[in-house]
Amino acid sequence: MSLSLYENFVEKFTHIRLLRQIERLLKWDYETCMPVAAVEIRAKQLAYLNGLIHQESTSQAYRSGLEEMVDLATGTIKLAGVSPIEASNLTIWSKDLLRLTRLPISFIETFTAAKINAVKVWKQAKLSSDFSLFSPWLQKIVDLNKKQADLLGYVDSPYDALIDLYEPGMTASTLSTIFDDLAPFLSSFIKKEAIQDSPYAAYFDHDFSAEDQRKFNQLLLDTINVPSTCTRLDFSVHPFCMGMHPTDVRLTTHLGGGLLQNIFAVLHEAGHALYELGFSKEAWNTPAAQPISMAVHESQSRWWEVMIGHSLPFWTYIYPTLQAYFPQLKGLSLSNFYQHINHIKPSCIRIYADEVTYPLHIILRFEIERQLIEGNISAADVPDLWNNKMKDLLGIVPDNDAMGCLQDTHWASGSFGYFPTYALGNIYAAQYFTAFSAAFPDWKVRVAGGSFLFIKEWLHNNIHQYGRRYDTAESMQRVTGQSIALDAYKDYITKKYR
Amino acid sequence: MSLSLYENFVEKFTHIRLLRQIERLLKWDYETCMPVAAVEIRAKQLAYLNGLIHQESTSQAYRSGLEEMVDLATGTIKLAGVSPIEASNLTIWSKDLLRLTRLPISFIETFTAAKINAVKVWKQAKLSSDFSLFSPWLQKIVDLNKKQADLLGYVDSPYDALIDLYEPGMTASTLSTIFDDLAPFLSSFIKKEAIQDSPYAAYFDHDFSAEDQRKFNQLLLDTINVPSTCTRLDFSVHPFCMGMHPTDVRLTTHLGGGLLQNIFAVLHEAGHALYELGFSKEAWNTPAAQPISMAVHESQSRWWEVMIGHSLPFWTYIYPTLQAYFPQLKGLSLSNFYQHINHIKPSCIRIYADEVTYPLHIILRFEIERQLIEGNISAADVPDLWNNKMKDLLGIVPDNDAMGCLQDTHWASGSFGYFPTYALGNIYAAQYFTAFSAAFPDWKVRVAGGSFLFIKEWLHNNIHQYGRRYDTAESMQRVTGQSIALDAYKDYITKKYR
Repeated sequence: MSLSLYENFVEKFTHIRLLRQIERLLKWDYETCMPVAAVEIRAKQLAYLNGLIHQESTSQAYRSGLEEMVDLATGTIKLAGVSPIEASNLTIWSKDLLRLTRLPISFIETFTAAKINAVKVWKQAKLSSDFSLFSPWLQKIVDLNKKQADLLGYVDSPYDALIDLYEPGMTASTLSTIFDDLAPFLSSFIKKEAIQDSPYAAYFDHDFSAEDQRKFNQLLLDTINVPSTCTRLDFSVHPFCMGMHPTDVRLTTHLGGGLLQNIFAVLHEAGHALYELGFSKEAWNTPAAQPISMAVHESQSRWWEVMIGHSLPFWTYIYPTLQAYFPQLKGLSLSNFYQHINHIKPSCIRIYADEVTYPLHIILRFEIERQLIEGNISAADVPDLWNNKMKDLLGIVPDNDAMGCLQDTHWASGSFGYFPTYALGNIYAAQYFTAFSAAFPDWKVRVAGGSFLFIKEWLHNNIHQYGRRYDTAESMQRVTGQSIALDAYKDYITKKYR
Repeated sequence: MSLSLYENFVEKFTHIRLLRQIERLLKWDYETCMPVAAVEIRAKQLAYLNGLIHQESTSQAYRSGLEEMVDLATGTIKLAGVSPIEASNLTIWSKDLLRLTRLPISFIETFTAAKINAVKVWKQAKLSSDFSLFSPWLQKIVDLNKKQADLLGYVDSPYDALIDLYEPGMTASTLSTIFDDLAPFLSSFIKKEAIQDSPYAAYFDHDFSAEDQRKFNQLLLDTINVPSTCTRLDFSVHPFCMGMHPTDVRLTTHLGGGLLQNIFAVLHEAGHALYELGFSKEAWNTPAAQPISMAVHESQSRWWEVMIGHSLPFWTYIYPTLQAYFPQLKGLSLSNFYQHINHIKPSCIRIYADEVTYPLHIILRFEIERQLIEGNISAADVPDLWNNKMKDLLGIVPDNDAMGCLQDTHWASGSFGYFPTYALGNIYAAQYFTAFSAAFPDWKVRVAGGSFLFIKEWLHNNIHQYGRRYDTAESMQRVTGQSIALDAYKDYITKKYR
């Protein structure tokens, strides 16, 4: 009896999950396939779907259905005889509902319209490197995010309410503690390196055949066991991964940036894809088929892109094949190739940053966006602050704002509190990797020999299969026996680069 | 005041049209992009969308909104001061609503489930050429179509209710009159031809480069002014065209069937695409952005595939380019190429039939499906009847049922009354073409010189721009000054082949 109440609830509101999948397909199509002239009608389709999803997810029927099983005010589960998984799902649904109902439709509509305009203006501002164009729109987005934080509620900082959207439970204060420790640690690696280009850069200054790159991309996906029956790989301006369902996960990459950029984009998106592919097919319409958080998602992409994809064992196995596909690399030894892909050099553009300097770009953005949201600075202060922090953290200053504070779309797109998940992803990946290395002390030998399935299985067994059953801190504790901490990451960087 | 009532209605129910576009995108994706393992979740997504569309299109709110403007029982428009276009839209919406409400959800669900199973069984039956497997499912689909005809209502034959779904206003009796005239006329062309292969067939027995075919496909689309900003061309098992909106129309073709099959598939689907692209962008959420009927849609595809695409002027212009792309054709003269593409030879498979024998395949299907629906024969009688009629109409008998009555998916997919639209499309195309030739007596010179825009514009001005404003008979009268008749088609075939 109690079970059927739960099952009826899942069944009755399955369409909300279907609508979310459909919305994601429309977004994927927008970036990959859609004829350019269809942009206006697609905006109408998406606006309608978003409204419908919000309406259905916050309907009285949905709320009443949940309230039969959970006391929403306290979070207490009233239903007897629920399994631990069901209890976890009920708790997550309740939290999600409370959060959603705090944002009225009128706010969502205003925010959505502002974001669309802000992105338009940001594109112009970036093209002409003219921050003054974007400044009033940035301030508008900041103010709307403050409003959003007020609606969502918070204890210490309004920024906490925003990061909670992407990394539940994380706070500005915790982030500051982590980043204040991390910044000088990473900067110390820069000082010891001469700021110069990799001596092997010329090997990659070729027009590598697009057709061969496509083939090598597929080989990479096959090698690390991304199943082609459940995925596809397309090309888009910015690489991304869109998961609709554990049987339908779509990756994109980009050929315009160069051979290595393409290869690491494929590995990065493959990491995201394997996470989404690892969710339960049976429980696809529950939180069991959802990621814990954006930072855990990023830990999975960085796992395959960096921990594995930038490792010597990985290239020991695959480099001869890369050379066979691209004879231009015949003269470059494995050891020099490895040095090249792990070369540290501060640069202005986040998405091209190496493993060591990358988190510094994130720390800079965190410090600025936190101050914006907490009201200590205004949008107009951003360019100077950006350039000063670049000098402090990375020792360089961008030539102009297009290469500086106008480079990313995130703020224009309305996302505040999102950037930190990129850095956290690296930290989590290193923590998970320490546990993995302990379980498989011979992983390097296995990988150098072309064995990869055990890695996917370890990730699946320890992380993927649970979906949102455990939050980040619980997942970390279960998998590594530890809290979220910097030690593993610092240890990994030190061993690799010192 | 009266106008705002109308406009409010359009605005309030625009989401129904958006949902239909989204459903079409999911179907397009299913055929072109979707990973194979996603078939089950896609079925769930489509089933939900279909249910939602039916629910919204037949809701009490929709009905009440329409009833404020139209007396649904009589079709009388109650709203004062409506424009002719608005009046036409109100009439069409009323008819569509009445038809939809005649089919209860329970019937639609039963029918949908039966079709899914019937297609599965049909695929097996076709593979093993074993009609006995399919026979009970064919009978089930026939019975459900009889039930559907009863629900929809009819005067003379239940078949009338079904063909009305695809070609409003057409009847079994009218079709019999047309086809009884057409069959001996077309058969007479076969008797005069020796039943043998084209002497130039060997020229096409090559592996033509897929990449060059892709490029030539694009050149064809550019040549006849299919705008690339609003379209895309993909590959699928069976070529099709899916229009979501006048700015988003997607074509597919198929490379596996050979060079000519690919070329004519592109021209055929381009004809469908130009129709959908020609609808009003402003009135996209009204019947002004919908096709008159399946047969008129087919007239547009056959126009570009056959009337233009199999004409000597067309190939006078484009054949040198074809030869440049595919040097294998260097030895084949334009005149012999033209003979080859217009070679008449009866064959068992409808989709590979030439222009003259094609309608005979349709007449055969019409005569069988009419008798099935009118209950004069049962599914088990189909194979013998098929083979006898093949002998009568085309002078040949298929080796087995896979090449015979199991070749098409239409019946398994639940469509009865659809096949005749293929033949009607040719007849309408010839009628429209007579009017076009009168307006442009120099069309051959223009086309041979590479001019095509005037054709697209004539079709747009006379047919496309109106959407469903006029029904087939009205459109024909306005464009050609005549009723639907065979004369133009017979005249065209006679001039070309006698």
